[in-house]
Amino acid sequence: MDYPNDQAPGAPVRSGIPEHGRIPKYYAVKARLLSLIDGLEEGDTLPTERDLALRHEVSRETVRQALRELLLEGRLRRQGRGTVVAGPKLEQPLSLASYTEGVRRQGRRPGRNLIGLERFPCPAALAAEIEVEAGEPVWHMERVLLADDERVGLESTYVTVARVPALDTGFDPDSSFYAYLTEKLSLSFGDADERIETVLATPREALLIGTPPALPMLLLHRLSRDAEGRPLERVRTLFRGDRFSFRTHLGHARPH
Amino acid sequence: MDYPNDQAPGAPVRSGIPEHGRIPKYYAVKARLLSLIDGLEEGDTLPTERDLALRHEVSRETVRQALRELLLEGRLRRQGRGTVVAGPKLEQPLSLASYTEGVRRQGRRPGRNLIGLERFPCPAALAAEIEVEAGEPVWHMERVLLADDERVGLESTYVTVARVPALDTGFDPDSSFYAYLTEKLSLSFGDADERIETVLATPREALLIGTPPALPMLLLHRLSRDAEGRPLERVRTLFRGDRFSFRTHLGHARPH
Repeated sequence: MDYPNDQAPGAPVRSGIPEHGRIPKYYAVKARLLSLIDGLEEGDTLPTERDLALRHEVSRETVRQALRELLLEGRLRRQGRGTVVAGPKLEQPLSLASYTEGVRRQGRRPGRNLIGLERFPCPAALAAEIEVEAGEPVWHMERVLLADDERVGLESTYVTVARVPALDTGFDPDSSFYAYLTEKLSLSFGDADERIETVLATPREALLIGTPPALPMLLLHRLSRDAEGRPLERVRTLFRGDRFSFRTHLGHARPH
Repeated sequence: MDYPNDQAPGAPVRSGIPEHGRIPKYYAVKARLLSLIDGLEEGDTLPTERDLALRHEVSRETVRQALRELLLEGRLRRQGRGTVVAGPKLEQPLSLASYTEGVRRQGRRPGRNLIGLERFPCPAALAAEIEVEAGEPVWHMERVLLADDERVGLESTYVTVARVPALDTGFDPDSSFYAYLTEKLSLSFGDADERIETVLATPREALLIGTPPALPMLLLHRLSRDAEGRPLERVRTLFRGDRFSFRTHLGHARPH
């Protein structure tokens, strides 16, 4: 449950706010559309732009701007020529476990499409991160992430060829790389450092994931280590910002 | 160190990509500006829009679009009438410790401006989250977060009046609420659940934080519990997406 500030429980807090008194017109429409959406079910169709413009007595451009923000935020999605109410964002756990496991836990079917797999001499910056000599052969595997056949992300994995010699022949790219490392290669994960930020999709990324360019994305940088503390993989995963959130549990285990 | 896909080490991975062959013009300019930025220092001034348009043989509107994305992503920032190279994003740890501690660790001076403090009967949805009876008095405290006097976020804290009776008289709103709870009230934090997503700033939020409206923000939802597992505070913190990233350490402690 969320309490945006302009819909805070109780009276809105207004003290200290510069009172310029102008709420942009598109935003007033957006707020009314949010109330409308709250009364609808996932998959319900919204009235057309034309109808919304007439109903709210604004221009179609104003309606379009409101719809654009609601699409970027994942409250609505395009379906054919119409606009429908979107489901809640997928909640991915921040954990050592894989994308696969996170998506499955939410009752979705994970999938991956291989974009490319290449082998190249490790450049200096990557070498410093994964603690190998520059020039040592490394793999770069790039995959589109799917949830129930919907494209939701794009993942780049960097791992040394020494660690995973048969990545090109022994691994099914539509399966979990985490499972491959732990089950087939008997490698065990010790810990990982992650960093999360928001970035805009590049045209190439937008094309591969099937989103509008400049959609806000959540970008996860990860460096995983094995049980001995040696770097195992460097991963860069881009998740659609309109489809994902991340959750984490902090501190001691909760008492039962 | 980051390896965006279109600048991957080694040859770019192109197999499997629909070859529509058109890179948007603004994006080509953006890529060239990124190379330019990489050669400059934090605070260095960029050439004017007019000069950039002449240099890259594109319209000023195309330059503006490239600059807009670089501003949204925090690679550039406005300074007076010019545009300068921005510093790296602040890295905030996801931990039970406070905003204050995270900012201090990075050598910045944390601050907070009180926007409002109100007391109201707990609505049903919040009551379910913080496990109290609906109608029980709760505080809502809203503060702008500062780092070295720069406005970087907006935080709403919800806590019961029973837990923190003198919030309105005994607490300096420009200080750490975490320190107040743990040091003055001798409450101890046990654990917390957090959820992170990206949202667009509302006009009110943009006004309070001093950002352009619709800037991508990182929104943290937090429910903290005390050492007995009872909910302590519900917090909603909005961080500028162009100024912050979050980092976390997963799994077992790293062996020394």
